[in-house]
Amino acid sequence: MLDVNWARTVFPPGALDDPTSVGLTSAHTVTLADESSPFRLDTGEFIAPVDVEYETYGTLSAARDNVVLVVHALSGDAHVAGWDYDAIQTGRKWRLRKPGWWDTVVGPGKPLDTRKFFVICANVLGSCYGTTGPGSPHPRTGKPYGLSFPMVTVGDWVNLQARLLDHLGIERILAVVGGSLGGQQVIEWMMAYPDRVEKAIVLAASAKLSAQGLAFNAVGRQTIMSDPNFNGGNYYGGPVPAQGLSAARMLAHITYLSDAAMDMKFGRRYRNKTKPDFDFGIEFEVESYLAYQGQSFVERFDANSYLYITRAMDYYDAAERWGGGNLVEACSRVTADTMVVSFSSDWLYPPAQCRELAAAFCQCGKPVTYIEVPSSYGHDAFLVETEIVGKLLADFLAREPKR
Amino acid sequence: MLDVNWARTVFPPGALDDPTSVGLTSAHTVTLADESSPFRLDTGEFIAPVDVEYETYGTLSAARDNVVLVVHALSGDAHVAGWDYDAIQTGRKWRLRKPGWWDTVVGPGKPLDTRKFFVICANVLGSCYGTTGPGSPHPRTGKPYGLSFPMVTVGDWVNLQARLLDHLGIERILAVVGGSLGGQQVIEWMMAYPDRVEKAIVLAASAKLSAQGLAFNAVGRQTIMSDPNFNGGNYYGGPVPAQGLSAARMLAHITYLSDAAMDMKFGRRYRNKTKPDFDFGIEFEVESYLAYQGQSFVERFDANSYLYITRAMDYYDAAERWGGGNLVEACSRVTADTMVVSFSSDWLYPPAQCRELAAAFCQCGKPVTYIEVPSSYGHDAFLVETEIVGKLLADFLAREPKR
Repeated sequence: MLDVNWARTVFPPGALDDPTSVGLTSAHTVTLADESSPFRLDTGEFIAPVDVEYETYGTLSAARDNVVLVVHALSGDAHVAGWDYDAIQTGRKWRLRKPGWWDTVVGPGKPLDTRKFFVICANVLGSCYGTTGPGSPHPRTGKPYGLSFPMVTVGDWVNLQARLLDHLGIERILAVVGGSLGGQQVIEWMMAYPDRVEKAIVLAASAKLSAQGLAFNAVGRQTIMSDPNFNGGNYYGGPVPAQGLSAARMLAHITYLSDAAMDMKFGRRYRNKTKPDFDFGIEFEVESYLAYQGQSFVERFDANSYLYITRAMDYYDAAERWGGGNLVEACSRVTADTMVVSFSSDWLYPPAQCRELAAAFCQCGKPVTYIEVPSSYGHDAFLVETEIVGKLLADFLAREPKR
Repeated sequence: MLDVNWARTVFPPGALDDPTSVGLTSAHTVTLADESSPFRLDTGEFIAPVDVEYETYGTLSAARDNVVLVVHALSGDAHVAGWDYDAIQTGRKWRLRKPGWWDTVVGPGKPLDTRKFFVICANVLGSCYGTTGPGSPHPRTGKPYGLSFPMVTVGDWVNLQARLLDHLGIERILAVVGGSLGGQQVIEWMMAYPDRVEKAIVLAASAKLSAQGLAFNAVGRQTIMSDPNFNGGNYYGGPVPAQGLSAARMLAHITYLSDAAMDMKFGRRYRNKTKPDFDFGIEFEVESYLAYQGQSFVERFDANSYLYITRAMDYYDAAERWGGGNLVEACSRVTADTMVVSFSSDWLYPPAQCRELAAAFCQCGKPVTYIEVPSSYGHDAFLVETEIVGKLLADFLAREPKR
């Protein structure tokens, strides 16, 4: 019973029949850990059950050698491309509004060509989009975990993705690709599973978050945790910490855009007026934009997941994990052919920090391609500069891997 | 009856007797507007009474031609130099902890030499340090204004400072100097009162705040206004919106420091440990620093004042006020000899924006000195780089003004 939202959407013929088409997709959920085989976390804790929501696009080749693993960023999910059939059926409206988050890049004839590649993306542990997270029921109480959910790390996410690949019977992946926090998962993949990755593409990410990045995350979490509705993370079933989460998202959004992009897009224009009202409401366009971003995020994201995922972002430090603090040492584990792409106006993971990662590969004689894309879109460029990113991806995937 | 805090402090001999010494200072409060002569605001509203707290250092010359007006930034006050005698007497502890906010620059033998200059600084309208603000009693109800306090602008601040100078019998000032939001007051002084200013020194400020700056202010205000204790601004006498104000200050602090400065100062070091605890408490040094900055700000600043002053910062646009949107037109009003100083790593008022102001002076043939100080301290550099700033100030004040 497809509703009117779906009916209005024009899908290519055979969208439901052709597995290489991503006109309409279905999410799958698989239980990858249960009481008998709990999932061991970086902290040493165990968690069970662990459900993982993932989507696939295209067809797995008989030799199982055409897998491209896409890893999502902070607020992303497994729904990379096409329109979500389940969401349409169940009326999960936020997903109806737009196709997958990388629909411009993944699909038949697109840079990650699903006529050729079998693309997989899984929602990360701790998120709120189908994989087990703080909103999931605690196995002992049946009530949502809230802050009793264990701390998760980028390493945990990658280990869980590896377990998903095991489940799907996939030993080795042709490529892993992701941007921002997704890019850090790519780095972790190369280092944790060097034998399983042929090519790796890191977009707008470096081996660790800067002190400034840690600071922004800390403020975002404080706004959430001091919201009157937060209640120590136990807000499920009641009003959510909307103001706090909204403020956190507004703040994060500033870090995703460049100063120049904000000036171009909004400048100091007033919102629907030529003079200010002289009050604390919405005066400027940029305030209106941020307020909208904050509010719409509250409708689609869980505040506790925001806490856990930003903390994972804080903790990640590839050099510390794999090189005793030495990034060159960490990179020397890697066998994948690597491409690192930075964006000139990105100030969350600035080019200089991305270049440091590429330089570390060079220093240990590993093949690496480093590209700084000129863009005024800031950190968001990795999602916005579709044409250049798509071309870089397609070319890098098409060429013989360097050893 | 000076208490032990004072006794421990060593003042130069004669600190209390010599008016050019700023070992120990007293704040003055003057009522500059009352019911019979209310103060007209930029919005068209009137306010009365208006009390202004100010301090002076040094001796006014017989010809009244040695006045340097210092204007303070967002969280500053009239107490520029020395130790506050009144605060020591009344136990206003936050002032006891440290001398005036520009004590390194203002004093006998210092760059703003009080043996030579008569230095004045007044607390701005809407602040919480002695001048009338949202915490002051509403004349009709006797209760604190809260958000019924009228909106104030940088223009209002400067007009009120002009009224203070009238009161003190000072027609013309040798120089006006300030940084950040203080720098914007300097710009306003030059344009609103071209006949009264001989020299003007703008530090770390441009003619308007960028869209990114507007955005940060908006998030800061949202954190305050969504604090459960905010209560529409009526929190006086009860618990203050501490969490919200603290988060706003933490956020602002990030914008005062450069990325590089934060990396140098804190990096990714854990706080008092070598491994993380894996929780949402203080894990990293930078989190501890920000939390401290936030908490100590709550002890010394009023949340409502923060709302009003950041809003004034938002609204200020010299080109719009004085040039119909054209900065060159606005600058053509100015007769003062001007120095604009930017700091290389400042990203709140970046060098490019400060240079735009200097360029506008050039374009209308006005004398201007523009200096970009290389510094890794970010926006804070205007307060931190005392040696170079002091030297620039002293040299600029000593030379014959250019016409």
